[in-house]
Amino acid sequence: MDALGKHLILELKDCDRKRLSDLDFLRNTLLSACRAAGAIILGESFHSFPPYGGVSGVVIIAESHFSVHTWPEYGYAAIDIFTCGNSLYPEGAVELLVRELQARDHSILELNRGILNSPSEPWMNHEGK
Amino acid sequence: MDALGKHLILELKDCDRKRLSDLDFLRNTLLSACRAAGAIILGESFHSFPPYGGVSGVVIIAESHFSVHTWPEYGYAAIDIFTCGNSLYPEGAVELLVRELQARDHSILELNRGILNSPSEPWMNHEGK
Repeated sequence: MDALGKHLILELKDCDRKRLSDLDFLRNTLLSACRAAGAIILGESFHSFPPYGGVSGVVIIAESHFSVHTWPEYGYAAIDIFTCGNSLYPEGAVELLVRELQARDHSILELNRGILNSPSEPWMNHEGK
Repeated sequence: MDALGKHLILELKDCDRKRLSDLDFLRNTLLSACRAAGAIILGESFHSFPPYGGVSGVVIIAESHFSVHTWPEYGYAAIDIFTCGNSLYPEGAVELLVRELQARDHSILELNRGILNSPSEPWMNHEGK
């Protein structure tokens, strides 16, 4: 089953709440995660939001994108890692993000995107711990 | 089951190939889709790639993000619509994107992101046509 892209949906729970509201930290961490995966970084956009300091950020890479959205008040971060081609190592990015955000609980859903010859849908493998 | 975010994973197949390689068209269409959903636009990043003119683009909105990645050579576009809160209407964005990219086949996977009180995972409702 060949897919054009691999999309990792990462749920990080019970994270370090201070880090989840630190825009600079999150920006540096997401960029480091891109590099850990071997991605070529092309552009980025990061913003923080009142009242709890939640952060949204996206990095466009030559191989698709990384995104993060945080809810410090719940200790929660939603992360997506969308890559195409076979040259990247997104698992390295996942490991770095779980470690740096100090997530005590996480789960990963892996979606296959762009399966062109199947009658319709993706999808998925699932793991959690 | 309360979730912090709703994430629509949209697979568009058999699209108009010329539109899939037109960065300005895709940028305008993704921004229109954000507005159709009622989103507040904060930032964006769009890039095109040789040799087929595939485009990657992300729009950060106050309520999370929209992204598009296209493969004109296969008539395929991968779109994500991640929204939080209850004030948006992402279905309006989906309708606009399917229409404007002239997708003859599409499927949607809806993921619930940030379900904090469940033992672990999301996830999903699925529809296709």
